[in-house]
Amino acid sequence: MLIEKRIPFRYVFRKIKNDVLRVLLFSVAFHLLKYFFSDYLPLVPFQLPTILGISISLLLAFKLNQSYDRWWEARKVWGAIVNDSRSLVLQLKGFVDESLRSTEESSTIIRLAHRQIAWCYCLGQSLRGLEPISEKQQELLHEQDLTFIQKQNNKPYALLMLHMRDLKDLHQKEAVNDFQQVQLDNTMVRLCDSMGKAERINNTVFPVTYGLFLHFFIYLFLVILSLALVETIGLYEIPVLTLIASTFFLIEKTAKHMQDPFRNKPTDTSVTAIARTIEINIKQVLQEPEVPKPLAPEKFYIM
Amino acid sequence: MLIEKRIPFRYVFRKIKNDVLRVLLFSVAFHLLKYFFSDYLPLVPFQLPTILGISISLLLAFKLNQSYDRWWEARKVWGAIVNDSRSLVLQLKGFVDESLRSTEESSTIIRLAHRQIAWCYCLGQSLRGLEPISEKQQELLHEQDLTFIQKQNNKPYALLMLHMRDLKDLHQKEAVNDFQQVQLDNTMVRLCDSMGKAERINNTVFPVTYGLFLHFFIYLFLVILSLALVETIGLYEIPVLTLIASTFFLIEKTAKHMQDPFRNKPTDTSVTAIARTIEINIKQVLQEPEVPKPLAPEKFYIM
Amino acid sequence: MLIEKRIPFRYVFRKIKNDVLRVLLFSVAFHLLKYFFSDYLPLVPFQLPTILGISISLLLAFKLNQSYDRWWEARKVWGAIVNDSRSLVLQLKGFVDESLRSTEESSTIIRLAHRQIAWCYCLGQSLRGLEPISEKQQELLHEQDLTFIQKQNNKPYALLMLHMRDLKDLHQKEAVNDFQQVQLDNTMVRLCDSMGKAERINNTVFPVTYGLFLHFFIYLFLVILSLALVETIGLYEIPVLTLIASTFFLIEKTAKHMQDPFRNKPTDTSVTAIARTIEINIKQVLQEPEVPKPLAPEKFYIM
Amino acid sequence: MLIEKRIPFRYVFRKIKNDVLRVLLFSVAFHLLKYFFSDYLPLVPFQLPTILGISISLLLAFKLNQSYDRWWEARKVWGAIVNDSRSLVLQLKGFVDESLRSTEESSTIIRLAHRQIAWCYCLGQSLRGLEPISEKQQELLHEQDLTFIQKQNNKPYALLMLHMRDLKDLHQKEAVNDFQQVQLDNTMVRLCDSMGKAERINNTVFPVTYGLFLHFFIYLFLVILSLALVETIGLYEIPVLTLIASTFFLIEKTAKHMQDPFRNKPTDTSVTAIARTIEINIKQVLQEPEVPKPLAPEKFYIM
Amino acid sequence: MLIEKRIPFRYVFRKIKNDVLRVLLFSVAFHLLKYFFSDYLPLVPFQLPTILGISISLLLAFKLNQSYDRWWEARKVWGAIVNDSRSLVLQLKGFVDESLRSTEESSTIIRLAHRQIAWCYCLGQSLRGLEPISEKQQELLHEQDLTFIQKQNNKPYALLMLHMRDLKDLHQKEAVNDFQQVQLDNTMVRLCDSMGKAERINNTVFPVTYGLFLHFFIYLFLVILSLALVETIGLYEIPVLTLIASTFFLIEKTAKHMQDPFRNKPTDTSVTAIARTIEINIKQVLQEPEVPKPLAPEKFYIM
Repeated sequence: MLIEKRIPFRYVFRKIKNDVLRVLLFSVAFHLLKYFFSDYLPLVPFQLPTILGISISLLLAFKLNQSYDRWWEARKVWGAIVNDSRSLVLQLKGFVDESLRSTEESSTIIRLAHRQIAWCYCLGQSLRGLEPISEKQQELLHEQDLTFIQKQNNKPYALLMLHMRDLKDLHQKEAVNDFQQVQLDNTMVRLCDSMGKAERINNTVFPVTYGLFLHFFIYLFLVILSLALVETIGLYEIPVLTLIASTFFLIEKTAKHMQDPFRNKPTDTSVTAIARTIEINIKQVLQEPEVPKPLAPEKFYIM
Repeated sequence: MLIEKRIPFRYVFRKIKNDVLRVLLFSVAFHLLKYFFSDYLPLVPFQLPTILGISISLLLAFKLNQSYDRWWEARKVWGAIVNDSRSLVLQLKGFVDESLRSTEESSTIIRLAHRQIAWCYCLGQSLRGLEPISEKQQELLHEQDLTFIQKQNNKPYALLMLHMRDLKDLHQKEAVNDFQQVQLDNTMVRLCDSMGKAERINNTVFPVTYGLFLHFFIYLFLVILSLALVETIGLYEIPVLTLIASTFFLIEKTAKHMQDPFRNKPTDTSVTAIARTIEINIKQVLQEPEVPKPLAPEKFYIM
Repeated sequence: MLIEKRIPFRYVFRKIKNDVLRVLLFSVAFHLLKYFFSDYLPLVPFQLPTILGISISLLLAFKLNQSYDRWWEARKVWGAIVNDSRSLVLQLKGFVDESLRSTEESSTIIRLAHRQIAWCYCLGQSLRGLEPISEKQQELLHEQDLTFIQKQNNKPYALLMLHMRDLKDLHQKEAVNDFQQVQLDNTMVRLCDSMGKAERINNTVFPVTYGLFLHFFIYLFLVILSLALVETIGLYEIPVLTLIASTFFLIEKTAKHMQDPFRNKPTDTSVTAIARTIEINIKQVLQEPEVPKPLAPEKFYIM
Repeated sequence: MLIEKRIPFRYVFRKIKNDVLRVLLFSVAFHLLKYFFSDYLPLVPFQLPTILGISISLLLAFKLNQSYDRWWEARKVWGAIVNDSRSLVLQLKGFVDESLRSTEESSTIIRLAHRQIAWCYCLGQSLRGLEPISEKQQELLHEQDLTFIQKQNNKPYALLMLHMRDLKDLHQKEAVNDFQQVQLDNTMVRLCDSMGKAERINNTVFPVTYGLFLHFFIYLFLVILSLALVETIGLYEIPVLTLIASTFFLIEKTAKHMQDPFRNKPTDTSVTAIARTIEINIKQVLQEPEVPKPLAPEKFYIM
Repeated sequence: MLIEKRIPFRYVFRKIKNDVLRVLLFSVAFHLLKYFFSDYLPLVPFQLPTILGISISLLLAFKLNQSYDRWWEARKVWGAIVNDSRSLVLQLKGFVDESLRSTEESSTIIRLAHRQIAWCYCLGQSLRGLEPISEKQQELLHEQDLTFIQKQNNKPYALLMLHMRDLKDLHQKEAVNDFQQVQLDNTMVRLCDSMGKAERINNTVFPVTYGLFLHFFIYLFLVILSLALVETIGLYEIPVLTLIASTFFLIEKTAKHMQDPFRNKPTDTSVTAIARTIEINIKQVLQEPEVPKPLAPEKFYIM
């Protein structure tokens, strides 16, 4: 997630470098063409780029809106993960009878809570295509758990399996009653849902042709605008067209980045920071002595 | 689902061939008309196509948005199917008591899990209008089940009936308690819901007149634009109009494809790939030795 | 629901006949005025109709969108009715103990299932303002039930009362346990909700002034456009204006039809066809020998 | 709620009288200015009002959309109140055991049902800022209940408190079991939710600056349009501008009315009519002999 | 929340002072440039600012819409907090058996209810970055509770932990049964959800580049518009451009304020007033003698 600090110009410019260069090129080309063989260029009436420009703005605005919705949905999914992780631990603490609970049950709660923290980090990493079980998470997981999930493809789902196994255990030892088991199962179902939703956003390619045709449409508009401008404002056309093209391409890129919020880029949903928040909250419920600090942002973004 | 590989030009062009040819035709016709009897053409003021062009862009953008919502809803429904399929198997493993469970109950769980995989494939096939029970699924279903569903029209619904029968069995044998039965029933209700939602999207024709009038409106715009252009840029009109028409028709087609995401076309929601993912996940929970690979994409799309 | 067959031109044209005639009239009137007293017409600058045309397109596009949402919501509500009807019967079959269940309980299930079919037809009819209990439904309902609902104003709600009475009976005879009763009650609540939602869409008039002012705005636009065109393209104005007006009015009418999806018109949500689908599904669950065919579409629509 | 009858012109005109007068005034002023000192007016190019006009249309269309959403949400909330009121009574009738239930329990059901009717009227009145407990409702409530709610500020919430007290009573007398109590509590929670949602819509001022700047923007547009028109169409400017201004202001007012659907105005959500529908439905479930008629609409609206 | 009183001009103007000054500056600069070296300015055709102006209006309108959604979501979250706080207290009063309940349990209910009030204030304060536990809330909380939450980072979450502890206590003393515990836990989960949602809106920066590029785009538009105007209306350009720029910047600022509804500004969601409403409602349920007055608004806003 980009933060409200001064975003480096280079970072912004790099994204649209190629497109803007291409625009610069044909704008110069048209200028030379006009200079040497002015008769070969059609006198494009200015209403033509007006129609195209407004059409593109419309489609771009709608696309930006759909991308924004995807981005906001991704953030909502991770918000739900925060809420359900916190609820899960609150419920475990609230349901399991303290007087009855032996050291074993108590340690089961701690194991579950730590695994929940690991699950959050692991899901974030695997969405971004990174190593799902980093060193950090190995500390939070038991030896057996680590062995179990090694054989599984979908690591976060494997961790939920282990959760279910522990909850079943707690139920069989009568540490939680039938009602409470169902209530905890509801929380598990919600976590499983959130995981699936994040995977859905990550795996579903935004309709390819939609973006393709729009990109082509922007070029068509810029070529026609360039032809219209070359006749009216001459040499001024080059900076004006370049600036207009830059803005359109920048907005197109913004849409593209928001579509895919788990690509290990500065514009990502800040899943690592969110997982850290969950870690802090859960460790405070467990009243552990050492609680980590919130994740510090990088130069102009937070992961 | 189209993937982000180079989409063949032929695939894109074939879709709008007829419309573009028609536009080419009347654009040439107007040109000849102007050449030979220039007095018969009205001097269309350029603001007229401007109004029409912007109106159409607006309606097109909104239609694209509604089509996108339909497409995204279809994807969400299949996302929910992934989640509930995974939850169902997790719940069965988590609820049925391992120490108590005889071989029979254990095999019931496996039968249910396999049938759940078959259900996903079967729903995908029947939405696409293909043979709902292919060979693949016959391996996953018991002999009796296959006999039962033969007499039923709605195969996926018939498989849910069999699920319900098995769950009732588990309850009667006290392998799951009253609470757990209700919890599993909730999962069944959600699966039944997702099935109904996918059928709804598949069976509801996008308002016909809406699309029809819009298509007619685009032609009206192109004819008037052609008349306006023929007066101003002469011969250049033909390529310019063709390009503009192509873009409008391409965007219209994109909307049309997103409206109907289960038509056995490259732009479909990738239900087979999703069903394969579910198969992999479920078989790993059951710790089966042979787990299939994820579905490989075709040249430029994945089914 | 209109289907993707060739929609008769007469059907489309009849809807906008009056409006188009009026437009034709004043377009001819302005033409004559110009011809005889050309000095009395103001020289309307073409930008004026441009502003109005785009404003109207915007408002029209938004209205179309809101109408579409209403139409899609109506379809969703009936989708939910399909799902909950199917779930209800699945639950009844899954919950009531077969070995324990006497002939009486078994017949209660059949009575409930048949009444559920009748409820779907009845709700559809009453939404459309037709006779809620047709002959067809009389076959599906018991004598007593028919007597009971005669005295009730809201027939579909009365059928739900009878459902509740039967479910209470099943509970008192211990055919369903406490948990299952609550689960069935949830399904009843959802059905009651869907009924209320359909009634809400049916009874809530789309903001009247909104449509009124927009209709007035379209006329204002057409008058000013006519004035602007009469000066520029002369006689050509009449067909051009008529075509443009037709498109605007057609789109306005499309919006109007989608707003009210239960008016016994070809553009209605196809509630009879949906009720038939439910009938087929439920009768197949009951394994009845005679299952009706899906509703065949009329010439260009399905009810 | 306005109904589809002929809406009196006076009702429509009164709303925009002041704004239109102001527009008329400066339009005449500019005309005189042009007549006497034509040199003092700038030659505003017509594209300037085009930009402003389209910008305003856009913002107005979006605002209309947001207002529409608020209005539709208010209607949905009251739709949910209908559904939950009906469900509540169905549940009470379905849960409380008839054979066991003494006269006392039976009268508790009737008291609850009547109070539910009173609650609907009371909520509607208090949202509109009217006397929450009118005579009508005093008939429906017991003496004690009336005394109790007198001391309470939030009357509808106080009625829900009394509901909860009665439900607790029923539970303690074992007229409803533990499951049923929870199920009834869910219905209470939903009613409490709907009440809160209606209060939220009523108490949240639509962002003030948003409306303010837009209103100012419309004036800016009209002034500039007036300047542009005075140069081009002379005296015709006055009626043209007045008509255009009227349309914009009418649409702005429509948005304003939809924002606040509980202001005791003809454009309100018809809460009294809805409460009456609930009364009819509930009294028919109780099989009371006297059922009131549906609320008759006023001249052109229904409250 | 701003209220519908006369908003001071200074408050409005201060927000856009810098931007408007900058616009004034280059508008004067261009004027001088034109005066002294008229040959150096290009003759910008007016269609160019038209395209840009409409594009910006579109993007601005969409951004305003997304900001509005965020603002409205924040208000919905706090509406849900009102509902669930009221439900919680109703449930406690409705579930805990009065005849059985000793003074201790009764005081537990009061402690929970008071803590719920404190939680609302505390969440509001901590969202706004103020001292979460003010004097006011110290009165509402017990000594022990205050000590406990001192060591916790996330104060509102810590208060929910204490809630859970008390509910567990009530369950262990059998003041609430298993069903009721689960029902109360559902309410706790919803409160935990609302807290998380408010934190999500507060912590998620609205896509930075989106706003940045749009701001840059507005300047590009104003520069080009200024160049176009300077050629056509001369000196009048300065006031016209300033007014247009002001409107665009005001709308941009309105969007910015709605994006972040918890910044301790007059445009905030009125969380303190809402918490006060909850306090009044809860204290009336407890039938406490002293109930505070609703929060009085400041000059033109309410916090």
